[in-house]
Amino acid sequence: MDLTALKTDLDGLDIDDRPSVLRAKSRDFYWYSPILKRQLDGITADLVISPRDEAEVIRVLSACYRHRVPVTVRGAGTGNYGQAMPLQGGVVLHMQHMAGVIALGDDHVVVRSGTVIDHIEQHLRRNGREIRLFPSTTATATIGGFIAGGSSGVGAIRWGGLRNPANIRRLRLVTMEETPRVLDLTGHDIHKAAHAYGVNGVMTEVELPVDPAGDWVDVMITAPDFIAANQLAIELGEALLLRMLSTFAAPVPELYFQRYRRHAGTGRAVLALMVARDALPALEARVTAWPGAAITYRADRADPAERLPALYEMAWNHTTLRAIRIDPGVTYLQMMFPRDRMAETIAALELRFGNELMLHCEYTRFNGVVSPVAMPLVRFTTENRLEELIQLLEAEFPITVFNPHRVTLEEGGMKRTDLSQLDFKRQTDPLGLMNPGKMIAWTTPDWTPETGKNFLFTE
Amino acid sequence: MDLTALKTDLDGLDIDDRPSVLRAKSRDFYWYSPILKRQLDGITADLVISPRDEAEVIRVLSACYRHRVPVTVRGAGTGNYGQAMPLQGGVVLHMQHMAGVIALGDDHVVVRSGTVIDHIEQHLRRNGREIRLFPSTTATATIGGFIAGGSSGVGAIRWGGLRNPANIRRLRLVTMEETPRVLDLTGHDIHKAAHAYGVNGVMTEVELPVDPAGDWVDVMITAPDFIAANQLAIELGEALLLRMLSTFAAPVPELYFQRYRRHAGTGRAVLALMVARDALPALEARVTAWPGAAITYRADRADPAERLPALYEMAWNHTTLRAIRIDPGVTYLQMMFPRDRMAETIAALELRFGNELMLHCEYTRFNGVVSPVAMPLVRFTTENRLEELIQLLEAEFPITVFNPHRVTLEEGGMKRTDLSQLDFKRQTDPLGLMNPGKMIAWTTPDWTPETGKNFLFTE
Ligand SMILES: Cc1cc2nc3c(=O)[nH]c(=O)nc-3n(C[C@H](O)[C@H](O)[C@H](O)COP(=O)(O)OP(=O)(O)OC[C@H]3O[C@@H](n4cnc5c(N)ncnc54)[C@H](O)[C@@H]3O)c2cc1C
Ligand SMILES: Cc1cc2nc3c(=O)[nH]c(=O)nc-3n(C[C@H](O)[C@H](O)[C@H](O)COP(=O)(O)OP(=O)(O)OC[C@H]3O[C@@H](n4cnc5c(N)ncnc54)[C@H](O)[C@@H]3O)c2cc1C
Repeated sequence: MDLTALKTDLDGLDIDDRPSVLRAKSRDFYWYSPILKRQLDGITADLVISPRDEAEVIRVLSACYRHRVPVTVRGAGTGNYGQAMPLQGGVVLHMQHMAGVIALGDDHVVVRSGTVIDHIEQHLRRNGREIRLFPSTTATATIGGFIAGGSSGVGAIRWGGLRNPANIRRLRLVTMEETPRVLDLTGHDIHKAAHAYGVNGVMTEVELPVDPAGDWVDVMITAPDFIAANQLAIELGEALLLRMLSTFAAPVPELYFQRYRRHAGTGRAVLALMVARDALPALEARVTAWPGAAITYRADRADPAERLPALYEMAWNHTTLRAIRIDPGVTYLQMMFPRDRMAETIAALELRFGNELMLHCEYTRFNGVVSPVAMPLVRFTTENRLEELIQLLEAEFPITVFNPHRVTLEEGGMKRTDLSQLDFKRQTDPLGLMNPGKMIAWTTPDWTPETGKNFLFTE
Repeated sequence: MDLTALKTDLDGLDIDDRPSVLRAKSRDFYWYSPILKRQLDGITADLVISPRDEAEVIRVLSACYRHRVPVTVRGAGTGNYGQAMPLQGGVVLHMQHMAGVIALGDDHVVVRSGTVIDHIEQHLRRNGREIRLFPSTTATATIGGFIAGGSSGVGAIRWGGLRNPANIRRLRLVTMEETPRVLDLTGHDIHKAAHAYGVNGVMTEVELPVDPAGDWVDVMITAPDFIAANQLAIELGEALLLRMLSTFAAPVPELYFQRYRRHAGTGRAVLALMVARDALPALEARVTAWPGAAITYRADRADPAERLPALYEMAWNHTTLRAIRIDPGVTYLQMMFPRDRMAETIAALELRFGNELMLHCEYTRFNGVVSPVAMPLVRFTTENRLEELIQLLEAEFPITVFNPHRVTLEEGGMKRTDLSQLDFKRQTDPLGLMNPGKMIAWTTPDWTPETGKNFLFTE
């Protein structure tokens, strides 16, 4: 890794090596996990390079290839599992300058990958359109980071998550080779680079479907308990046009949603929705008919002086953030359980784990069906107990855990190596210089998942 | 401490003893400090009681007196030093229900102590008035918590901090005695209960001066270095009508002010201001005349689609929050240095501590003079180093540190026992049941400050 030679080769680029910049641009929201916080605290890049256009991306990648310098791409650094952290140092490629809308059609938009997602949405709204899917971090996160590192978010109840092939049209990717190539991925090829943590190239451009702008209203509903809340959620999700549908067990909202607290009641489960304005009367009728449920907040009738944040900033992974801000002893999990055994699973979890697990679900459309994804808060005690908890959840319940306390693709969201991604990496990054350490299969092809065993730091 | 009897006595009140509620309502932003985070993590109250009016406060205090149960008052729990954490358990008295404006005059407002500060400001604005002083947490913090636990904030550049006798008109206080008394404190007596962490009674009502509503515009300015930024700040602070005046050394804004980053430049020091709209032309002229300075953001000319948070949410103790969110290895200090030796002190600090200390100042009016208060970010390594750093700052520089890593009144903001507060406590809380552990003089009258020595946990 000859950094001096690299710098000489890259003369004229925006290169930063101030120690505090290196440190800040080498971290993301890894500290959500007490385990990753301990493991990754010392990670620092050697250089932060912010390319101004695709030609500069190509220059950086070919120079880094020549000098064998690892490259980790960074959008806004809001990822949660050290996704954007340069485990082996080298260059952090910061996409901050590569922002802006390139073209807007009736049903699609082309943007540079470093564009902040909310800027895309605002641009679309001025043109009567809206984005299909965005993470709750939309105010700061980039579209490239969302596609490479995210999974789902607001809009999923209507369109499903990022893995739904309908939600991304095209990715433009620069490869990490002696002479980098520029590939335009469409159709099934998109998933070679989507949710790949940038291990097989740098996205420079993204084409997304867009839809006519909806008129969405934030609504909060309370229900007597979490099972009822989820039953009501499924009914509403199937009947009404929604952009977001989230459920929270008591006492999550009353404890952690400071500014919405007075709408959350005491000891009540809560639903948070973004509803089409036209559907409000139907929503009202259904909630009124539901025993014990009540609408406690409607943005269209709210006192503007309350100046509440958007409701999606309570949901998705913002729930965890809200909780940690109030109690740093909280962390979280991500898991799936079958919708048809939802009630019994919730009851069994509450019985088994009590307050150690505080449930929270986000609803998505999975093959057309309204389905819950659980993102429970966990009262952290020790790392061993957290590992044990994950083991118990998978062994004793019909649950799959996507472990957010791991830094690799396989141990986190995927649960297995995506062979097409691995194969693609062989072609696009033959020296394994892109975000090294994040794809187990690259270094240890015969690895198999074993709960409780942490790949990166035990092998 | 007979809690069963206490509960019986207080039948009909809003009492909560769900474990997760007890835990959440027993913490504040103590975790800003790695030292307090370690020390206070286990603290939990036995009951959370939320009185609905002053009569219920009196009932709680007399019952707790009878049963010898400690009482710690809680506003919104945004204090930073474990101020609102019940070190000896007992009751957390949560002021959430005691909110609302009671009376509004031309030049004053009377509010219940649990009112969220921004709600007061919004109410005032609808009536052509504004509040004099608010913390950057105004969206969630209560006026009672601000007066009992806070010190200064937005407005200080015009009106000085909370200790300025002109900024509070009257406090209404319930005492902790066999038969609680209700006292209305005015004039000098106010400071017996202001910034006393609630150790000598429960504030139920507050009367504050109000002023005609100003028309304030957020402005960001960059300057070549931190010394220049502060020289410019003093010039502007003396010449123009401002509501806020803050300065940040590079690379604080570019690293931590995510959504303002593009206005913060690279390697530039930054000033953040709230300026009277009428003063904008004068501001522009002065900044243009200043070598190397530039206005990079004006809210009145901003693209509304950017939807930036209020600039004060980058300043005061929000600066620390922004930094910790990006790098949990950051903590902070609070200190004063003489304005007339500012340039040499800044230069010496940068030379001596480099990136370990990242400077940030807030400007206040101190006896009429525009004066800096430093709230530097600190790159935390070990507790010993943090203690040593404080010692070095006080020994080798013309600096006084107000240690935010201590839980007591004396070791934090005051540096000494306020004898009038102590004397007042003898009258209002003879058994020492109010927020016990926060006033050293109560338990250890002959204590003297000794940097590096932590009272609570070493004696
Ligand atoms: C409070 C909070 C809430 C969140 N809510 C959601 C949510 O609702 N839904 C969700 O899916 N996620 C969520 N996340 C996770 C994260 O915010 C999203 O994944 C976000 O979209 C990441 O964008 P970013 O620009 O910050 O990416 P980064 O964190 O900068 O990067 C993420 C990954 O993508 C790679 N990458 C970035 N840009 C490129 C590029 N141009 N080419 C190739 N690789 C690239 C990085 O190397 C890294 O591996 C949340 C996180 C937080 C802290
Ligand atoms: C991000 C951030 C930014 C901040 N910015 C500022 C700032 O700009 N200026 C500033 O001064 N502080 C600031 N603080 C500290 C804190 O927000 C303020 O002091 C705030 O006003 C506290 O209000 P609260 O309602 O949250 O009080 P709490 O934290 O609930 O209580 C604070 C103290 O007051 C006591 N108390 C509360 N209510 C009463 C009552 N009715 N009677 C008697 N005692 C009572 C409590 O026992 C406790 O000791 C900041 C903190 C954070 C986390």
